Amino acid sequence: MPASDFTPQEYAQRLTKTRAAMASQGIETLIVADPSNMAWLTGYDGWSFYVPQVVIVPSEGTPLWWGRTQDKAGAAQTTWIGTENLFDWPEEHVQHPNHHPYDALVTLLQDRGWTGALGVEMDNYYYSAAAHRILETAFGRTAIADATSLVNWQRAVKSETELEMMRKAGRLTAHMHAVLREGFREGRRKNELVAEVQAAGIAGLPGLAGDYPAIAPIAPSGLEASASHITWNDRPLTRGEATYFEVSGCFHRYHCPASRTLFLGEVPADIRRAEEAVLTAISDTLAAARPGVTCEEIATCVYDSFSRAGYVKANRTGYPIGLSYPPDWGERTMSLRPGDTTRLETGMTFHLMPGLWTPDWGVAITESFVVTPTGGQALAEIPLNMVAAP
Amino acid sequence: MPASDFTPQEYAQRLTKTRAAMASQGIETLIVADPSNMAWLTGYDGWSFYVPQVVIVPSEGTPLWWGRTQDKAGAAQTTWIGTENLFDWPEEHVQHPNHHPYDALVTLLQDRGWTGALGVEMDNYYYSAAAHRILETAFGRTAIADATSLVNWQRAVKSETELEMMRKAGRLTAHMHAVLREGFREGRRKNELVAEVQAAGIAGLPGLAGDYPAIAPIAPSGLEASASHITWNDRPLTRGEATYFEVSGCFHRYHCPASRTLFLGEVPADIRRAEEAVLTAISDTLAAARPGVTCEEIATCVYDSFSRAGYVKANRTGYPIGLSYPPDWGERTMSLRPGDTTRLETGMTFHLMPGLWTPDWGVAITESFVVTPTGGQALAEIPLNMVAAP
Repeated sequence: MPASDFTPQEYAQRLTKTRAAMASQGIETLIVADPSNMAWLTGYDGWSFYVPQVVIVPSEGTPLWWGRTQDKAGAAQTTWIGTENLFDWPEEHVQHPNHHPYDALVTLLQDRGWTGALGVEMDNYYYSAAAHRILETAFGRTAIADATSLVNWQRAVKSETELEMMRKAGRLTAHMHAVLREGFREGRRKNELVAEVQAAGIAGLPGLAGDYPAIAPIAPSGLEASASHITWNDRPLTRGEATYFEVSGCFHRYHCPASRTLFLGEVPADIRRAEEAVLTAISDTLAAARPGVTCEEIATCVYDSFSRAGYVKANRTGYPIGLSYPPDWGERTMSLRPGDTTRLETGMTFHLMPGLWTPDWGVAITESFVVTPTGGQALAEIPLNMVAAP
Repeated sequence: MPASDFTPQEYAQRLTKTRAAMASQGIETLIVADPSNMAWLTGYDGWSFYVPQVVIVPSEGTPLWWGRTQDKAGAAQTTWIGTENLFDWPEEHVQHPNHHPYDALVTLLQDRGWTGALGVEMDNYYYSAAAHRILETAFGRTAIADATSLVNWQRAVKSETELEMMRKAGRLTAHMHAVLREGFREGRRKNELVAEVQAAGIAGLPGLAGDYPAIAPIAPSGLEASASHITWNDRPLTRGEATYFEVSGCFHRYHCPASRTLFLGEVPADIRRAEEAVLTAISDTLAAARPGVTCEEIATCVYDSFSRAGYVKANRTGYPIGLSYPPDWGERTMSLRPGDTTRLETGMTFHLMPGLWTPDWGVAITESFVVTPTGGQALAEIPLNMVAAP
């Protein structure tokens, strides 16, 4: 995801939005550890998030990148912020039991005089309890506010360029599902099929190369499909079993996930009924997804649609998507569920997940969409119906 | 990684070792959030670590799995601990701004009377600062000790069964590198080559299926290769550029990483010299890697070998490997670097990384090995030399 994907103006707007949110929360210096947020603000890209690294957004001036010495060259190659704004912590701190990279971050913050009104992402994978303790010890508890999701919220409405990238990701997702439908037949080992589908997403299409998605393919069959996050194994595909595949193409770190359910043999009537209910729920919900409607109204739309078909569903039925790094391609801000009264805006993007699960099987057919004035518009063109292979 | 990969006796031994370490640190109840540690203790497998989940190890009795309701079926399918030991937090907590799954964990711990002498993994990706604050608020700061890496240390010496699995991962890694050498030629787009290599690792070999590795392929070319953690793009492979590929096969979550450097065209003399120095450092170091030798002595062996060849290297040159989940396939315990006086033991496994980088290129040739009484033994058979494609 080179910074050059976006104009300097777009990065400037992102920074302006972020600073407005900082100001409204009384934060002068924001410490951003979420790699998706780091990339969105600066363009930084690399599989280096397994060690401490942050982008620091001061109340004015250019943001700073701070990371491991050996990743500084990667920061110079991928970000727009200029090498004078890249800072590194010495290699000796890496995974050391007695000292920590955040010791060096404390020094950097002190050098700049950024020792109060700090914001941190307390509930992020890449900001540990140990890191937080070091900052609290140095600056005091009251000097640090929780700014979890502050930047994520600024990412909610996508620019035209971002939507183009998500549609490209969607073309990759569609290609992956086409390869999947083609290769889905009795006796094939699941891992072989997954290998083909993943390769399709990365080799991509002419002029359209794929990146690694933030979640590995989820691909449970039969009884496994009653669980939610089973990846794959080498069992042969078996007659009479439903398999669902949740995959996403990834284009320059932007995602467009989609699940489809496939069946070997004649689909039992109860699964067909569930499929019909899911397809109806998707079409009902996309029609309703206009600006001004709340997240909970979207969820209610799904539940009502299911209820008319005789099914009960009450859990979260979708979440926002976009730029992401492992382990999650969701943005962790809004949720399509009761109680979330956030209003949809044009340009917001969601993964709508109206799945139905029983203890014996699951039907997962999902759609990624963008909110438009006339309703939700699918970001990928992938046949929704269950595939029944002979 | 189904629990059935290992005998009940092996799981019992793991628990015994873990409890001995807990006792020595005064910990009565250990809360394990690292998915690799969760899997090692119980067999739990699934891409569900993007939401809070833990294994709780009380001072006696069977460990408990605690996670999201929809992941309980996956826990029933993959762990050995019995459904009576699976506990879930309600779906409404998922990524909610006003309440948190750890609120439910507090209740579970209180119900059991496990409110003091708790251990937590403060410096793990999957134990957030927000989670820690909730436990501290409920139980007080002195009730909670930092147990980062407590379980990781118990994983350092591998069982025979684990070594078999790592050698299987090594066969997958070797297969990936063979496909890479075969496909490496001028004008090929990097993403197409990466797609082939990844597919080879997952489709695997007859009777040997691959899993997703904990790190995506690192594959920088030319100037990119001066950075450490660049993944890939769609640039065609270009004459006169070195590319290094760091990949790992993954068998039932066990890894065996290996980097190799490839070059298109005639290799410049300075890169050939660097290659020679790296190959000599690997062979010197493997010969030295016997039980009783310290980690820093191994590092010194690498540095001395380089020094004899006229190169200076002083940073960490390897780390332990084994069972892992994203974002890291290292075990985050020992480091092959000055100051680490841990003594090698038979059955420990490391990724030895004697790379040489300049601002213009990098030569990364690495080897995963197991410590044996006669020295380090490679876990995979992959030609070490640089590949120079015509």
